[in-house]
Formats: sequence, structure tokens, C-alpha cells
Amino acid sequence: MGNGKGSGPQAGLRRRNMALVMQALAAGEQTTRATVAAAVGLTRATVSTLVDELLAAGLLEERGAQRPGTVGRPGTALALSDTGAAGLGAEIGVDHLAACVVDLRGTVRCRVEAPAANRGRPAPEVLGELAALAADVTGQAAALGLRPAGTTVAVPGLVGRDRRTVLRAPNLGWEQAEVAEALGPGTVVDNEANLGALAELWLGGHDRLADFVHVSAEIGIGAAVVVEGRLFRGARGFAGELGHVPVRPDGPRCSCGAHGCLETYAGEEALLRAAKVSTGRVPELRAAAAAGDPAALHALEEAGAALGIALSGAVNLLDPQAVVVGGPLADLAPWLLPGVRRELADRVTDRRWRPQDVVTSSLGRDGVLRGAAYSAVRAVLDDPAAWIMSAADRA
Amino acid sequence: MGNGKGSGPQAGLRRRNMALVMQALAAGEQTTRATVAAAVGLTRATVSTLVDELLAAGLLEERGAQRPGTVGRPGTALALSDTGAAGLGAEIGVDHLAACVVDLRGTVRCRVEAPAANRGRPAPEVLGELAALAADVTGQAAALGLRPAGTTVAVPGLVGRDRRTVLRAPNLGWEQAEVAEALGPGTVVDNEANLGALAELWLGGHDRLADFVHVSAEIGIGAAVVVEGRLFRGARGFAGELGHVPVRPDGPRCSCGAHGCLETYAGEEALLRAAKVSTGRVPELRAAAAAGDPAALHALEEAGAALGIALSGAVNLLDPQAVVVGGPLADLAPWLLPGVRRELADRVTDRRWRPQDVVTSSLGRDGVLRGAAYSAVRAVLDDPAAWIMSAADRA
Repeated sequence: MGNGKGSGPQAGLRRRNMALVMQALAAGEQTTRATVAAAVGLTRATVSTLVDELLAAGLLEERGAQRPGTVGRPGTALALSDTGAAGLGAEIGVDHLAACVVDLRGTVRCRVEAPAANRGRPAPEVLGELAALAADVTGQAAALGLRPAGTTVAVPGLVGRDRRTVLRAPNLGWEQAEVAEALGPGTVVDNEANLGALAELWLGGHDRLADFVHVSAEIGIGAAVVVEGRLFRGARGFAGELGHVPVRPDGPRCSCGAHGCLETYAGEEALLRAAKVSTGRVPELRAAAAAGDPAALHALEEAGAALGIALSGAVNLLDPQAVVVGGPLADLAPWLLPGVRRELADRVTDRRWRPQDVVTSSLGRDGVLRGAAYSAVRAVLDDPAAWIMSAADRA
Repeated sequence: MGNGKGSGPQAGLRRRNMALVMQALAAGEQTTRATVAAAVGLTRATVSTLVDELLAAGLLEERGAQRPGTVGRPGTALALSDTGAAGLGAEIGVDHLAACVVDLRGTVRCRVEAPAANRGRPAPEVLGELAALAADVTGQAAALGLRPAGTTVAVPGLVGRDRRTVLRAPNLGWEQAEVAEALGPGTVVDNEANLGALAELWLGGHDRLADFVHVSAEIGIGAAVVVEGRLFRGARGFAGELGHVPVRPDGPRCSCGAHGCLETYAGEEALLRAAKVSTGRVPELRAAAAAGDPAALHALEEAGAALGIALSGAVNLLDPQAVVVGGPLADLAPWLLPGVRRELADRVTDRRWRPQDVVTSSLGRDGVLRGAAYSAVRAVLDDPAAWIMSAADRA
């Protein structure tokens, strides 16, 4: 059986136990070997051995005695390390590129962004620029003692089940773009709405929120469904297409070919056109609404109602705890949310749908990018033994 | 450690292993101790011990040597027993009551049904009649050597998370009805649409279908969402209210108070009214459509389109493998499905939605009742050790 680091059931058990210890410390409620042991149901001796390995690998650090009066090592406070393993997130927007590195604690440690008119540009050109930004931020991170364990790229489009290829991103004009390949080994790709929802789950300020619909938008409107703390992806990975839920079946023709999709009422393009905002996009719309401009207020009222109608369908089907509005839409919340809340109150009658059941994200525009970076960190937290083995291979 | 039948980790392991063996045999692909051992990854000796216990408890039976030339016990074919533990299902419809008993294999062994005008009748009166039917069918089952391990009651309404209370069943006029209590110990209550979907998952003819939306209807329209082979219940257990997804936000007023819900276009009442069918309900509508009656055909065309619009929203959000139409709606499939398929093809553009992705249930009207009965059987298959212990307590 050896030291249990090989293959076989014993190694599998050790691997799972190490993940349990790491997750208990990541949750932040336990900070010593003794309390971790009690929380995860392992012996003190087992936990001490695992903690020593995690310390040696640089995934944990010691912070001196937690209670000065306590004798011996078990009272020493432990924390996730703020150096070593980290996560790299990269984001392809319609009009920008960005990359950031977060440490194991989820703190953004460096971030770069560049404006870029990506609509209609060939994917290789955009991906070349993104790879350069990623290299830049990785260099900055190295100077802080951080090394990304993996990279996640956020894209406004449908991603293949292999999590490497963008199948279709209409707002970029891409079909079958090999995104992961362009960013090097250890890269996965995900839809921006999914990553925004995961950021909310992992890093958002709404405690105990494990079942929710997260709505976000850049040009399109995406949603993601989180169920029992897990992202719901659907049979082919295409779940969450709230933007194409029919609001009025005979409504305006949508870019997808159908009629009356939510996007034709509440997508950014439709909203700016209805509000007669031509240049400054969402910030200009926000300013116009704040100044009481009637066209802006009317457009936002209509968009909020359409969003509320589509969300009523989603809530009747899925019975989430809450709806979270994130991304650029969150900046328009004061004008959108009254209509959303009114439609939900009128159309969800199984249970009283209260105004506080629709909340805005506290993560703002950075939610998607932070979600991308932190999902690479989550892979380390979920299986630290695998990271330790691969680090040993690299050394 | 004793014989491992007590409490503690060893007993937990034995209990899980016994469930693995039972499920491997229930799936029907493995039929001997040797192939079960290989399939579940346990030793032959462990599997033999567990099989002996399951035989002694009457949950399995031996069927003689599978291959006559094989020497020794391991070649003996095993099967789930068709006597002993069984499941009792009971159904409260708007115009009928029914009960049935299925054996461990899922075969209906006895069934009773009674017409009953339940709309607006006090719950205790209806539940008294249902308890009498359940007693009747239990007596018939006893004569066949079957004893229900549990009872599941199907209701057309919202069920509390305790699975004992009906919170609200508008089509019966019930609020807060204590249904489980009235049927005695070991009873749970579930929504009819959920049980119809579970029946499809467990007993339906569509192999490998693990992610689907199941639509059914009696008076209301219910749906249930199955994800990775599990019923999706939502945060409060109210998921699946497809009948109140908005189809046309300014449409007719629904019984729920909102406007333009699917139920106002495709619910049985709306459909019969539009088709000018007054007495014979769905069978009469079916006959009228088959005879080419224009009002019936028009009503079914409109209802199919409305169902397709609501399902387009569901499919865009949930990305299921398929939509399954069950219950009384399945009898109308030839006239409803063209509209459903057309709307889905027009409105789901992420991937081609093919006609064969909308299927009808092969279980017909009995799906809900069989799902109820078999869910009590599933509890035995999922944890045979618990059933054996409780049987020993009763002895």
C-alpha cells in the first residue's frame, strides 16, 4: 500500500480527503487542524498529515497561533496561500479584451484590459491579441510569486462540450473558432453568462444563494441557471438562452430568425435604438435616464417589462430562490427592475414573488472576468492532489 | 466490528454495496453473481454474501442455472422477485380516483379505479374514498403474495417539501390538505406531473433519455424537468409550472390571475371550449378531430402552437435532449404535435430542433399512477438494507 500516493482505492481516498480539507479551509469558517478535523469528520492525525502536504506544496500558509494560550501545533491558524497557485481569466467582449489573475483566495492581483472592436474580426487576430494580454498579466503575476494553474476564457457565444471550441458567437461573427488552442495548455472556454453566474455563486455577496437564475448582457442577453450550487448546462451545454425566450410571439424579427424574442425588446441594441442613444452606449443611456429623458425612461420601462415576462416563464418552470441581475444590465437596475418585479409579481402566483427576490450583482462588469479566473482556482481547490502531482511533474 | 449489520462506517458500506447489487440486477443487464461483481467492482465473495441476504429477504429469486454446462452456484440466474415487496400508487384526479400495486419489476399486478367528481369536494371525503380503494387493492395484492413497502399519492397540485401536504390544488379547490396522514404510515405525496415524468424515466420506452421536459395535462398543464436522470424540483418544490408560462402577455385572463398563460390556450377547459365540445371531453374532441370537424381542428392547431411557444422558451432555457408529451395530451398528439414541432423549429435556433425530438409517451394515461406505485418500489431498490431491517422489525 506504500504511502498511499500511488493509484488504487487508498490513493483515491487520500485525494478526496485532501480536497475536503482544502475546501473546509477555503470556506473560511475553519482555520485550525482541530476544527477542520471536526468539520470534515476525519481524525486529527489524518488532517495534520494532509495539512503538512498542503503547506509543503505552498497551497496553505500558517499564521501563528490562533489563540496565544493554546499549546502545540493544532492551534496554529491556517489560511489559503496568497502566492503560488493562481487562476488566469481572459475575456473576449464585443468591444474589449481583458485578462486577470486571482489568487487562491479569489482576490484579483493583476488585471489588464484593452479596447478592441472585435465584431467581425477574424478569430485568430483577436485570439493573438488576447494571448498577448494573457502573457502580460502572467508576467505581472510571476513578479508577485503567482503562477496560474489554468486559464479560462469567457466568450459571448455557444461553447462545445469539449470546452475548447466556440461553436457560434453571432455577435462576434464567429463559427467554429479554436479558442483554447490559441491560449496554450490548461485552457478551457466557457460562455460569459455561465462564468458570471459562477462568479456570483462563488464570490458574490448573496450568502446561501444556491438556486438562482442569473441574467447578464453585453450585446446579447444571456442567463445561467444555478441549481443546488451547480451550474446547469443542459444536454448539449446550451442552457440559459433567455435572450431567445419568446416574449410576444408575433413581435419584431430577431437576429436568430424567430419573432418576438426577449433580445428584440431588451437587448442592448434594441434598448439603445428605442432610447435614441447613438454613441455612448450604456453609460449614455444611464445618464439620459438619470436626467429624466422620456425616450430613455420609456425604453427602459419596456425593456424591464419584457425581461420580467421572460423571467416569469423561467421562474414558473424552475422555481429558483432568486433572480440575480448582473453585467452591464446591473448599471440600469434602477430603471429596469420595477418592470421586472411587477411582471414577476403578476405572473408567478404559486408563491408570492417579493421585490427582494430580484437582486443585482455586487460584482459589476468584472463578474465574468473574475468568474473565469476563479474557475481555474476552483479546479485546484476541488482537487489539490492533482495540482500537487502536476507541479511535481513540472519541477 | 461484528457482522457489519450494526451502525458505523462498515454498516454504511455494506448498505451501499447491497444497493449497488440490487440496482445492477434491477437494470436487467446482469443476471449472475459473477457478472454483477464485475459490473459493480466488488469481489465475487462480497457479492455472493449480499445476494444470499437479498434472497433470504425475498427481494431476489433464483431461476436455475443460466448456462446448463456451468458448474457451481455463480452461474445461477438471478432476478428481482415478483412477490414480497411491492409499491402502492394512488391517484387523485379531478374526475376519478385510482390505485394500483406494482411488483419489484414494475409490472402492474392489480388496479382499481372509480369515477368521482372531486372538484370542490372536501378533501377528507375524497381521501376517505381513496383510502378505501387503496385497502381494496392492497387486499388483492396480498392474495398474490405482494406487500406494499410504501404508498405514493399523485395529486394535481402543489405539494409541500415534506411530501405529505397538498399546499394548493386549484382544480380540486383544496388548500392545505393533509393527504399523507389520511393514507397511513409510509405514504408520500407528489405532484402528478412529477410522477408522470418519473414513470417515463423509469418505465418509458425511450432508452437513454435522461434530460427531458415532460408535459402532461389533466385539467391544468404540468411539466416536469428531468436532468441527468433526476427530477428537478426547484428551490421550493414548485418547478415545472409550464401552464403559467406567458404565451401572449396580453392574452386572456387565467384562473391564476395573470394574462395569457399557456393554460388559457392549451388547457383542457380552453381547448374543449374552443372546439365547442361540451360533454364527452377529450375522447369526444379526439373523435371530432378524427372526423375532420373544423372547430376541433382549429382549436387543436391553436393549442399546439401555444404549447410550442411555451416549450420554445423552456428549451432555450434548459437545452433538454427531448420533449415528451404524456397524459391525456398524448391522445391528441396527431393534431397537437405539428404546431409544437413547427414553433420549436422556428424558435430554437442554437441547434436544429428535429421533429423526432418531440415524442409521445408510451405509458398513456396510466403513466402517473404507475410512476406513483413504482416510486415506492424505487425506494426499496435504492436501499434494500433499510427495507430488510424494517421487515425484520415488523416480523
